Amino acid sequence: MKIVIIGAVAAGAKAAAKSKRLLPDAEVIIYTKEEYVSYSACGLPYYIEGNFKDIKKLVVRTIPEFESKGIKIYNKHYVTKISPEIKKITVRNLETKETFEETYDKLLIATGATPYIPDIKNININGVYTLKTLDDGLKIRQAMLNSKKAVIIGGGYIGLELLEAFMHNNLNTVLIEKNFSIMSTFDEDMASLISAYILKNYGDKISIITSVNIEEIIGESEVKGIRLDNGHIISSDMIALTSGVIPVVDIAKNAGIEIGHTGAIKVNSRMLTNIPDIYAAGDCVEKINMISDTPMWVPLGSTANKEGRCAALNMCGVVDDFEGIFGSAVTRFMDMTISRTGLSSKTAEKLGYDIVSAIVTKRDKAGYMPGVGYVTLKLIADRRSHKLLGAQSVGSGDADKRINTLATGLIRGMTVEELNDADMTYAPPYSTSIDPLIDAARILREKLACGA
Amino acid sequence: MKIVIIGAVAAGAKAAAKSKRLLPDAEVIIYTKEEYVSYSACGLPYYIEGNFKDIKKLVVRTIPEFESKGIKIYNKHYVTKISPEIKKITVRNLETKETFEETYDKLLIATGATPYIPDIKNININGVYTLKTLDDGLKIRQAMLNSKKAVIIGGGYIGLELLEAFMHNNLNTVLIEKNFSIMSTFDEDMASLISAYILKNYGDKISIITSVNIEEIIGESEVKGIRLDNGHIISSDMIALTSGVIPVVDIAKNAGIEIGHTGAIKVNSRMLTNIPDIYAAGDCVEKINMISDTPMWVPLGSTANKEGRCAALNMCGVVDDFEGIFGSAVTRFMDMTISRTGLSSKTAEKLGYDIVSAIVTKRDKAGYMPGVGYVTLKLIADRRSHKLLGAQSVGSGDADKRINTLATGLIRGMTVEELNDADMTYAPPYSTSIDPLIDAARILREKLACGA
Repeated sequence: MKIVIIGAVAAGAKAAAKSKRLLPDAEVIIYTKEEYVSYSACGLPYYIEGNFKDIKKLVVRTIPEFESKGIKIYNKHYVTKISPEIKKITVRNLETKETFEETYDKLLIATGATPYIPDIKNININGVYTLKTLDDGLKIRQAMLNSKKAVIIGGGYIGLELLEAFMHNNLNTVLIEKNFSIMSTFDEDMASLISAYILKNYGDKISIITSVNIEEIIGESEVKGIRLDNGHIISSDMIALTSGVIPVVDIAKNAGIEIGHTGAIKVNSRMLTNIPDIYAAGDCVEKINMISDTPMWVPLGSTANKEGRCAALNMCGVVDDFEGIFGSAVTRFMDMTISRTGLSSKTAEKLGYDIVSAIVTKRDKAGYMPGVGYVTLKLIADRRSHKLLGAQSVGSGDADKRINTLATGLIRGMTVEELNDADMTYAPPYSTSIDPLIDAARILREKLACGA
Repeated sequence: MKIVIIGAVAAGAKAAAKSKRLLPDAEVIIYTKEEYVSYSACGLPYYIEGNFKDIKKLVVRTIPEFESKGIKIYNKHYVTKISPEIKKITVRNLETKETFEETYDKLLIATGATPYIPDIKNININGVYTLKTLDDGLKIRQAMLNSKKAVIIGGGYIGLELLEAFMHNNLNTVLIEKNFSIMSTFDEDMASLISAYILKNYGDKISIITSVNIEEIIGESEVKGIRLDNGHIISSDMIALTSGVIPVVDIAKNAGIEIGHTGAIKVNSRMLTNIPDIYAAGDCVEKINMISDTPMWVPLGSTANKEGRCAALNMCGVVDDFEGIFGSAVTRFMDMTISRTGLSSKTAEKLGYDIVSAIVTKRDKAGYMPGVGYVTLKLIADRRSHKLLGAQSVGSGDADKRINTLATGLIRGMTVEELNDADMTYAPPYSTSIDPLIDAARILREKLACGA
């Protein structure tokens, strides 16, 4: 039995380790074009910020660790082609430039995602950085330490995390977002709270400009700034490009593997593609949103780990199903926690739901306790079935606690009424006696009862 | 319409406010033997500790605030008798000693709970304190400030909270627990982690003695110490008696209202007792544990608020059901969070379940983040149905996040397999990429699969 895996960050690394444990006699081989394997890409902004000195702390398992378990790793090796009809892949050694073929019994595609590069003039000159690999992290930190002014293009999760990192390191930073509001996976009412918080507390150091496009990056060999489509010029020593990511599907597509409408590889609940013995997992595959039962592409490390494990089980002959996701996510900006799960109002409406929603702002603990903060919570439900569809939270402290709590309730289609009676823990350092989730559910319940 | 309520802390105060909002023309009258109304008893240990100076911060709504809404409050008035056949109550004014009668259309009993006083010699002398009312809080703080040594009798939630308060105020404190381990609503494996943490970190200031009984309290007019049944004498300037609470049911019982096996008042899901037009809510009533579908008595402020609201709705003619609880609770000792929900192993076994459990200890956030701590999580499931029965967590940081998350999953009987695939949020400041909950579920799943 020979299991070949393409990619070694989260899904690929997890699948390799799990496969070898399940079938100790199997050959397990990983090919990756990168130098490093099995690392936490989510931790890169915190390395750049300076929370820890050695970027190798982000490595979960080293190549020698894998090899000591009997897993073969070829790093700096790029897989150029999959030939399903003869069950072979073609590999190029990026150092020697040699090309060779490798056979497989089971193949796992875990090629991940890559930064989306918008079509902007001069986007490829020196001083424009993307953030995906450990090497990217090292380069951005070095550039940041040599810069006084930065521009971040894109106000999603990584954009905000880099904004914090740059602010901590005293860079004057401008964040540019082409949409009406930053954090576009949130509804505008909640996203506007995030911008307001950032500008109110840190507006002396950073700016956010929304609803603009970038005309060009100014500079010849080196970045000097950007020109917006409204004519304004913003000078800058460096640019971080965080305009989202796209799934890496080229070799899969060329091999006849089906790509979904989301642009990512289509798999069944056992992580099998449309071609026998070829599995795919992690950021390169699309997932089923379990609320709407529709495919979505939400690339996250937490999901990649689960998919890697599921793929390994099935490749090794143990039937296992990974049913899908809710799109639960969290990030931090300074002392603000930003979190979400399920469908947003705008996505739910697009999918045809008749929605009802409520927003509450409450203290995150008893008002008399030291360090009391606030959490604003938005709950979204389906007017017909009364089932909860999603939630978003912004605030200090445990804003994410409420999101995880709701995400678990979504598994079996919890209704507004059930959430209203949920038994949440209470003690003054942790919550108010009526948790914000319960309060929001009560408002929704009353809205539903009176047909509002 | 005349609604009369006995008791004004959590359930009574909530029911009064809600009733008046629902039926503005109704007469709403509260009788309470206490001076203060509508306060957070759960906050008393934090007042004693010195987290805030003014005990009135614990008051949610003052008497003038209630009166401005048209609710009549008679404080320092003790209800001595309920006469259901003539729909009247008998009330004694505790200041004037006058007695009078009052009619009602709907009556709510919200008499709460009172500290359990164990049968120990000299238990009533000066220097022995219980903690339930604001007045108790004032007295304990004063005594603490005049003391160097303290004994706490009972290692439950309030015992631990007072232990922290006394330690913060530099008292040498000994906590006495008659059971094998403190925190007896937890399984012994988890409770032992709590003791171990306390003694390891603060053993120079405090002691915990378990599995002992107290022979007598030493002292004539003033406490001097205690004598244990093993002959040891512990000297002390004050004693806090935190041996649990019991429901206040005397006047209900005398009126023919049914008392459950738990010793608390029996109500249906609409908070109605066995007597028409007499409702009961809060710490004086028993609740249905929704996992085992058996009555339990778990007196908590979070539940009292929900029951008060439910009683108000039904008294005002709006049908509303409160189905029950899971027994979710949380407390803090210094930087340790202690939380639980559902059934413990020992309770589940007593109820006849064939259980399977798993304990995991994991970092509470990514290992490379500043301030990383640990959380130990125990998950308990039913071997036959694979349904989750309960969880307990002990650790730094967000130990309670996992408990709330699970408590919501319990509502619809989530299985181990469903939890294993749950979509939890992940970012390095908040969790590991595989949340401890998911890890514990995976171990349980593997145990169930191989019949361990």
